[in-house]
Amino acid sequence: MFDMTRLPRTLELVRTETGAVALEYIDERHLPGTLKVERVEDWRLVVSAIKTLAVRGAPAIGVAGAAAIALWACNEGLAKARLAGCAEAGETFPEALDLVADEVEHARPTAVNLAWGVGRMRELSVVLLNEGSSLEYVADALFEEVKAMEREDERANRSMGAYGAELIPEGARILTHCNAGSLATVYYGTALGVVYAAAEQGRVRRVYADETRPVGQGARLTVWELAQAGVPVTLNCDNMAASLMAKGEIDLVIVGADRITANGDVANKIGTYGLAVLAKHHDIPFYVAAPSSTFDLSLATGADIVIEHRSEKEVLPEGIEGVEVYNPAFDVTPAALVTRIITERGVLKPEEVAAVFEARA
Amino acid sequence: MFDMTRLPRTLELVRTETGAVALEYIDERHLPGTLKVERVEDWRLVVSAIKTLAVRGAPAIGVAGAAAIALWACNEGLAKARLAGCAEAGETFPEALDLVADEVEHARPTAVNLAWGVGRMRELSVVLLNEGSSLEYVADALFEEVKAMEREDERANRSMGAYGAELIPEGARILTHCNAGSLATVYYGTALGVVYAAAEQGRVRRVYADETRPVGQGARLTVWELAQAGVPVTLNCDNMAASLMAKGEIDLVIVGADRITANGDVANKIGTYGLAVLAKHHDIPFYVAAPSSTFDLSLATGADIVIEHRSEKEVLPEGIEGVEVYNPAFDVTPAALVTRIITERGVLKPEEVAAVFEARA
Repeated sequence: MFDMTRLPRTLELVRTETGAVALEYIDERHLPGTLKVERVEDWRLVVSAIKTLAVRGAPAIGVAGAAAIALWACNEGLAKARLAGCAEAGETFPEALDLVADEVEHARPTAVNLAWGVGRMRELSVVLLNEGSSLEYVADALFEEVKAMEREDERANRSMGAYGAELIPEGARILTHCNAGSLATVYYGTALGVVYAAAEQGRVRRVYADETRPVGQGARLTVWELAQAGVPVTLNCDNMAASLMAKGEIDLVIVGADRITANGDVANKIGTYGLAVLAKHHDIPFYVAAPSSTFDLSLATGADIVIEHRSEKEVLPEGIEGVEVYNPAFDVTPAALVTRIITERGVLKPEEVAAVFEARA
Repeated sequence: MFDMTRLPRTLELVRTETGAVALEYIDERHLPGTLKVERVEDWRLVVSAIKTLAVRGAPAIGVAGAAAIALWACNEGLAKARLAGCAEAGETFPEALDLVADEVEHARPTAVNLAWGVGRMRELSVVLLNEGSSLEYVADALFEEVKAMEREDERANRSMGAYGAELIPEGARILTHCNAGSLATVYYGTALGVVYAAAEQGRVRRVYADETRPVGQGARLTVWELAQAGVPVTLNCDNMAASLMAKGEIDLVIVGADRITANGDVANKIGTYGLAVLAKHHDIPFYVAAPSSTFDLSLATGADIVIEHRSEKEVLPEGIEGVEVYNPAFDVTPAALVTRIITERGVLKPEEVAAVFEARA
């Protein structure tokens, strides 16, 4: 029944028949109806895919952002350099890459993974260019860096899954919000990675998925991928979670994250904070699963996180005269409401975040 | 700016040019796009309107249910009696009315107002028939009873508004859920009646309206009627309420009710319970506004209330293979989470419900 192999990879950087580099990704706006895979060679289309939520999920947009830079370097950057002639090209390539990186990095503000992925590409290119590497070599290296990030993403997710599964009791009924699944990563998922690892061990009775208004990542993506993988799943409206908890139907809550600050505060999809309050009221453990790339030790607390506000049309497509709309895409859950944070390096208490990740930085 | 007169009445029992009796009501499924008023003479269409949520809101369906019985009595019941001849008719009229009343009463299970409205019609007809009144007289009396209920509804709402407005601070930012407005009553509203009364006194800075999935009574009805009346209103998804509270944007929550039990537990639109938990966590007062017809002292606690579960299609119109749907239309908020209950008889603590309403019964 349970079979992860039915889940497709979310994105993959490839070399095409013509020698160009392309990003293949699932356009998630068409799910659950259609599994539509796009293949783009223009980095601007990746930025647009990130902005329009065709590609979404903090870990996925981290890798997609890096891939956008690889696309630019391997396709446009190299071609322009060849046209311009070598001497001049060596000067303009790093500046042009910087401009591209800036634009990619600001496609969306809240998930730190985007800045992380872009930063990694930026640093690599600076090191190699300073060493006097050829532009071809740099472009190749940027391509390989994205391929490494793809592998690391899956490895981190499987590691989180293994650590997290130990927290899941036999016969667990698990509530999740938004999509922190395979579709939010390159493959396997963060919060749902934990679910898959526990399901593999036969310990998941059912997942309840919040539909997650206004974009419906739960209703469109989470239920789809869980059903694909053969995990029993029930969709509920966001406002029904409390009713499920009161009935004793939920053993634990697990969600992903878009940014975790030094004190263990967690920015995640709007509605997460409310769920955490409800979980506390009902004495239900509240877990967050996120890879290293989601931690931002440069921010002391969640109050410093920039929260993206999106178009009113997401909530009210037609508009009504005299009616305003409040549409933040994220909220911040204070560390005090988080039972444990599951990372690829182990399971942490929120107050351990700074020590563990500073040690690494 | 504030002007209640722009709000239409939700329903009204009328005598038509042909001498028949008809119910005129706003078909709320077409709001906010179109203000569509239906006029029906067949009581079965009223039952259908209640089931499909064309007419909804506990106080409104209480009166609509009574109106359905008046339609039957004045149109179909009298006509059949005349056809059958008087002797037989006197025997079949009460039995037929009973069958109609049963069907109307069970159109929806959770709001006690429906049983209340139907019960009142049933009792009146029994008394009059026992007194030997003519069927014409009984039918007339049933018509007048509905007209009295219409007047009582508005009077109760205005009284709740006056009592409730005293609880609203200057510059209040008020969160509400679902639609407990004029559109949920004959006119003026319960929870929004309090808002209107406070707005008339210039004390409402803004109302935040939960969109109220899956049917969207907040997104379609509450924002529409508040905008019509000139009350500043912001629509938010249900899962954004906690974020607003955390930001200090909400001074109080006020909602309606579908059934209040002897201990002060409150059944109301799904999501209400979660809001009450969130309000408690943020130290925000949580008010419930409801007329006498919403109180059900025959039930000791909310655990005894039958919760209506509605079609999966409301949540997931297309369906996804392997995905189940949880769609209760209501939840129960325990009395301990309710700050005050606002009734037309005054403002009560939840624990005072039994004493106050038993004294009346």
